[in-house]
Amino acid sequence: MKADIITIGDEILIGHTIDSNSAFIAFELNSLGINVYRIYSIADRKIDIIITLDEAIQESDIIIITGGLGPTNDDITKKTLMEYFGGTPVLDEFSMEYINKLLKARGIEATECNIRQAEVPDTCTVLRNRNGSAPGMLFKKNDKTIISLPGVPYEMKGIMYDEVIPYLTNNFSLPVIIHKTILTAELPESGIADILNIWEKKLDNNTRLAYLPSPGIVKLRISISGNNKDQLKLKLNNHISYLSKIIGPKYIFGYDDDSLESVIGELLRNKKKTVSTVESCTGGNIAHRITGIPGSSDYFIGSVVAYSNSIKKDIVGVPRELISNYGAVSKYVVEAMSVGIREKFSTDFGIATSGIAGPGGGTKDKPVGTTWLSVSHHKGVYSQVYQLGDHRGRNIEKATIYALNMLRNAILEFE
Amino acid sequence: MKADIITIGDEILIGHTIDSNSAFIAFELNSLGINVYRIYSIADRKIDIIITLDEAIQESDIIIITGGLGPTNDDITKKTLMEYFGGTPVLDEFSMEYINKLLKARGIEATECNIRQAEVPDTCTVLRNRNGSAPGMLFKKNDKTIISLPGVPYEMKGIMYDEVIPYLTNNFSLPVIIHKTILTAELPESGIADILNIWEKKLDNNTRLAYLPSPGIVKLRISISGNNKDQLKLKLNNHISYLSKIIGPKYIFGYDDDSLESVIGELLRNKKKTVSTVESCTGGNIAHRITGIPGSSDYFIGSVVAYSNSIKKDIVGVPRELISNYGAVSKYVVEAMSVGIREKFSTDFGIATSGIAGPGGGTKDKPVGTTWLSVSHHKGVYSQVYQLGDHRGRNIEKATIYALNMLRNAILEFE
Repeated sequence: MKADIITIGDEILIGHTIDSNSAFIAFELNSLGINVYRIYSIADRKIDIIITLDEAIQESDIIIITGGLGPTNDDITKKTLMEYFGGTPVLDEFSMEYINKLLKARGIEATECNIRQAEVPDTCTVLRNRNGSAPGMLFKKNDKTIISLPGVPYEMKGIMYDEVIPYLTNNFSLPVIIHKTILTAELPESGIADILNIWEKKLDNNTRLAYLPSPGIVKLRISISGNNKDQLKLKLNNHISYLSKIIGPKYIFGYDDDSLESVIGELLRNKKKTVSTVESCTGGNIAHRITGIPGSSDYFIGSVVAYSNSIKKDIVGVPRELISNYGAVSKYVVEAMSVGIREKFSTDFGIATSGIAGPGGGTKDKPVGTTWLSVSHHKGVYSQVYQLGDHRGRNIEKATIYALNMLRNAILEFE
Repeated sequence: MKADIITIGDEILIGHTIDSNSAFIAFELNSLGINVYRIYSIADRKIDIIITLDEAIQESDIIIITGGLGPTNDDITKKTLMEYFGGTPVLDEFSMEYINKLLKARGIEATECNIRQAEVPDTCTVLRNRNGSAPGMLFKKNDKTIISLPGVPYEMKGIMYDEVIPYLTNNFSLPVIIHKTILTAELPESGIADILNIWEKKLDNNTRLAYLPSPGIVKLRISISGNNKDQLKLKLNNHISYLSKIIGPKYIFGYDDDSLESVIGELLRNKKKTVSTVESCTGGNIAHRITGIPGSSDYFIGSVVAYSNSIKKDIVGVPRELISNYGAVSKYVVEAMSVGIREKFSTDFGIATSGIAGPGGGTKDKPVGTTWLSVSHHKGVYSQVYQLGDHRGRNIEKATIYALNMLRNAILEFE
């Protein structure tokens, strides 16, 4: 079963609005085992709607259209669909009732424009909109199903859940597709590709792997399609176990919707441990990530952003001679920082970062991107140097991810 | 001049990723006076790429493709374009140098996979990628221009700014369009719309206003098109002066590419002043924003993320009885925090935040979203309470923006 999605609206083509509706619809269709073939964004123009509908009907079984159902003159989807599929306008009682209720609350009478909102072509099946005045519409043409929904996200989502998904489930015999995403940190995309190369080449046509990279992180999404859900689950789990083994737990921090900071939060909460951070090059980003998780105050005590050396010395207690002998970006200073913050803030774990984020500040011995990270706990202190790139923002992001993953591994090893 | 945009990547069709690249490209093309006709999202599948290219080449003059240029097996755009446009692979020296530099920093040799990354068909013009290993490519076919860019947003944006926009400007005769963006903080979109209502209604057809909102910030982009650049500039400047006056300098923090943190950085640098922060509800995000600016160590000394009350007392010096009498989220505590950090870190300005970011922790008197912000300097201390929303991430973001704008106004008033 194949589907196309068509988003209608000038605001997308002029770049003022990011089309998030399509991603939602695509996700829901895929979950039902319906493959999305193409997503189109087109203008509020009759001829464009007709051309695109013609194409979509030729290539797919189901077409879901969003947008252009509003009451203003530039919303022409309904008029165009009435021309395309034929029919005459009839009043949809459910929509008219909704509109009247709205107007009554404001103490005004329905205008012609309001009534037009509640009219649909008699060639369609109405899809009830419980969150707005524009009804959804379902048309059939040569065994193809064409669905028109409003562009307002919560109205569109309401009709999808209330009407479209039940309709598709009841009227089509759908295959089963299941997905799982492995979340990795620190490894580059090409490094993972090398590890997975032999496995990837042996995959059958029903199994697909997608690499989704962002600074410091690569997500691996595996999708399997077929008929028997239990068999697919077994197959997927076998893939996941195998990949988890060959990539290794040091780099895999979670699955699906996990984040490094949510995984760390759960580990700390379960082990009843606390953490504090002292950040130089990451400038507070590690604390920002950790405190993005609701309830993080249970295990996150606080942080010092030690940007100047005097703060490293006076607040965190790094010995003056370490800084003067080895420089702030050094193994000795970063270790003294992570040990110092752990003691000062009385936490079980301490994290420290000290690096040259760039673009300035590099030297021959310590070029831009040189970054020392450290984690300490009651049994000792661990540190590692990384050579990141020359882009400040990405260096900060990568150092944050690497430090959080270092902490995650330290918590796992911690007895 | 018409353009199509094609986004290639399974992750969009399975609904895993929202296509934000297209909005960026559409926005930039529109800014050049190039109309975007259709945006397509398609899978990493050869046949789909070819069918869509055929269609796009028929309907538009310029086609910009993103995605599918990674080193992994699912990235097949380059292979497909080489088939489509003909040619044989040649090594692009610039890309190979970039890759070798990266690998050298990690102490490893180039693999076959790395070298393939740097190869391009000899039928294309290379568009240099300064932020990644996948080069952009430009092909010509029957007077049509086809451009292929990586899908990683910062790499795509880099090539757009460095290569694509200059190419389009130099090789096509485009209408004159000029833009300027006013950057505002704290005011809601609807509040600004009310202020601008009368002015907006009087605009002619060649003048367009776009509202671009994000948490705590609304950007107002004014575009004017015509023939005479000097006349347009004069007209645009008149609009900008008028709007700046009616919105007011308290809320306007900059123009175009400014950011609150870059504006603050420049002010502090010019006045030779320093700042430190103590953050509770913002969890380090203010420090993270300030230190995102290169050279911020000149005026940013450091920060304490005081998540637990013990840190507020022991490190920042907030009197114990203020916390027990008024609670951590109160005028007295947030002021003691901003004064405390300023003294402790010996800076000219101190910023403090204390609020209930949510979703838990609210009470009847202090519901989720209650946020106290404070700025202190040698003449005194200022604080204000805000009622933000019930979404943790947005509350943190808004509190950060409001605090930075409070600091900006304090620096401007500071003699």
